[in-house]
Amino acid sequence: MTAIHFPDADYARRIERARVEMERRGVGAMLVSVGNDLPYLTGYGAMPSERLTMGVITPSDATIVVPGLEAPRIVDRGAFAVQPWGETEDPVSIVAKLANGASRVAIGAQTWSVFLVRLQQQMAGAEFVDATEVTRPLRILKDESEIDLLRRAGSAVDRVVGRLRDAKLSGRTEAHVARDVMEMTVEEGHDVATFHIVASGPNAASPHHEPGERVIRDGDCVVVDFGGRLGGYCSDTTRTFHVGEPSAMYAEAFAALQASQAAGRAAAGPGVAAQDIDRAARRVLVASGHAEWFIHRLGHGIGLDGHEDPYLVEGNEEVLEPGMAFSVEPGIYMPGEWGMRIEDIVVCTEDGRESLNNAPRDLAIVE
Amino acid sequence: MTAIHFPDADYARRIERARVEMERRGVGAMLVSVGNDLPYLTGYGAMPSERLTMGVITPSDATIVVPGLEAPRIVDRGAFAVQPWGETEDPVSIVAKLANGASRVAIGAQTWSVFLVRLQQQMAGAEFVDATEVTRPLRILKDESEIDLLRRAGSAVDRVVGRLRDAKLSGRTEAHVARDVMEMTVEEGHDVATFHIVASGPNAASPHHEPGERVIRDGDCVVVDFGGRLGGYCSDTTRTFHVGEPSAMYAEAFAALQASQAAGRAAAGPGVAAQDIDRAARRVLVASGHAEWFIHRLGHGIGLDGHEDPYLVEGNEEVLEPGMAFSVEPGIYMPGEWGMRIEDIVVCTEDGRESLNNAPRDLAIVE
Repeated sequence: MTAIHFPDADYARRIERARVEMERRGVGAMLVSVGNDLPYLTGYGAMPSERLTMGVITPSDATIVVPGLEAPRIVDRGAFAVQPWGETEDPVSIVAKLANGASRVAIGAQTWSVFLVRLQQQMAGAEFVDATEVTRPLRILKDESEIDLLRRAGSAVDRVVGRLRDAKLSGRTEAHVARDVMEMTVEEGHDVATFHIVASGPNAASPHHEPGERVIRDGDCVVVDFGGRLGGYCSDTTRTFHVGEPSAMYAEAFAALQASQAAGRAAAGPGVAAQDIDRAARRVLVASGHAEWFIHRLGHGIGLDGHEDPYLVEGNEEVLEPGMAFSVEPGIYMPGEWGMRIEDIVVCTEDGRESLNNAPRDLAIVE
Repeated sequence: MTAIHFPDADYARRIERARVEMERRGVGAMLVSVGNDLPYLTGYGAMPSERLTMGVITPSDATIVVPGLEAPRIVDRGAFAVQPWGETEDPVSIVAKLANGASRVAIGAQTWSVFLVRLQQQMAGAEFVDATEVTRPLRILKDESEIDLLRRAGSAVDRVVGRLRDAKLSGRTEAHVARDVMEMTVEEGHDVATFHIVASGPNAASPHHEPGERVIRDGDCVVVDFGGRLGGYCSDTTRTFHVGEPSAMYAEAFAALQASQAAGRAAAGPGVAAQDIDRAARRVLVASGHAEWFIHRLGHGIGLDGHEDPYLVEGNEEVLEPGMAFSVEPGIYMPGEWGMRIEDIVVCTEDGRESLNNAPRDLAIVE
């Protein structure tokens, strides 16, 4: 991951805010490894590795325990100490010691279970809870500089969509198109392309289809869902293409999908419950008779993680606040036949919402 | 990840072998999510996601619990059942039920801690251990088709090294060279490029340096460590380049490094303890006076994971057997000045070893 550059003072402030949340929850130590809590708090991201990197935050100290050979990667921001460990040392015992007898310990959501298992062996009696409890209230509210990165990433994928609308898709494999999408994602300004779904014809009925050797041909729908990372922050957009004119049935479903996605966006704003945005989009597809084939939630939060809080899903009564960013992405999936999806990233503002994706949302007819 | 295609019977056999290891250890249920235990056992890899995918292996059943929208991705191999869950269901309770009251539960090493925390809440009293205990004896011994994939991946990175030896490095940024390396890694036959270290001049003293905006210039050493995945299996090689002729001191250190790496390879073979291979390579650098700057272990196992058992490190008395694959990669790192590393993947054979990387190991002088 490319380093995220915020002013050093931001990291010190974030660690202080995390301590407030820890105290509120009776958490005596927070231990975060891979995933984005650590970079959010310190600007440093752990390498996913059997060699443990772990940020240890207590009421009095903040330390990154890091393999010695990776210590030179860490930029000193004044907000934390660095404790390298040698190749024959046990990093888990170093972390356990730094946790200083905490009885309630928050563990990073994506931290590898092997380390949690070992920590539990060495910290008998401690209760472990999900560190998301602590970091969620901080990370869910993006500040202006975070929104700016999300906005820039959104514009970059919009430019890729623009280029795809002019491209010829038929005669090429999904995998080939996916490779082009990845390259364009980087060309248009991302530090890295992180994912790319290219699902054609019946494959489009699988929302998380992995692009394969199927050759796209005349009459196919093609769902393209992709994104990357810019300054640490994620983009994520979906547009649906069609090789040649669609059938009347497909066009009709697509019109309903467009209306549903617009209704979802329009419903977003401060004071609205997350599930009500899902409901607003779903209602349109109930009315059009397509709701049965809208088989997933409406959206997910986005930031340093591609999927994070808040989730727009039935049962989530969380109320939106300015600074929350999330996807609005209804889809219709006809098993064995076709699929379609439209996805924008939307930010809740003081008086409504801002869509960070603004490429045309119509069905793009391509060759 | 690109699907790994072994015959269906292989997966059934692997699950049976896992059950033998489970019984031996009193493990009543094995729960594996992201990471490579699940694809090894079933051919299906979980998406890293807040939506839980989890393979549940018990003495009588094997089930993949999967988000409904990802269920179409799973290829039925006859060896396991598929249980999709809906967007408003709790997958953890489904898994807990399938575990069927097991009192000793093996949890996948890389499974996200948030899921382990939730499982522990729902399976009060169960003891959780690292699933690597169960899968390690299987995965550490590669069969012929696995070695063939490692060999093909090794040849592919060797061809990239060949192309780099003819390339001009000076005047380009590390990040730019890294991008080229990634592209060539795919061009030469990998499904995906997974990592790339390009560390020039003083940056080469950081073994896990992240390629940045430093412009490579005359007189620089350049350590290039990279790899990808082919049919699920990893490559990983390192060669050191030098822009123009090196200093006498650098050349002397490099000669010692070459001898050390050769000694490490020569020491590998059946019946040898992992730590003794590390010692054999380290001894050469002790004699030459460079051991102080060889700051990491000699190597790591490789297969579906880029780093896995066996680790060639002081203190690891595990004895090599035919079918084990691992890196041999000594390095010398002079802080603030320069670095160097040579890395091959080596497989232990019946009567010795086979190096899967065979690009020239000398210091490549480039423009």
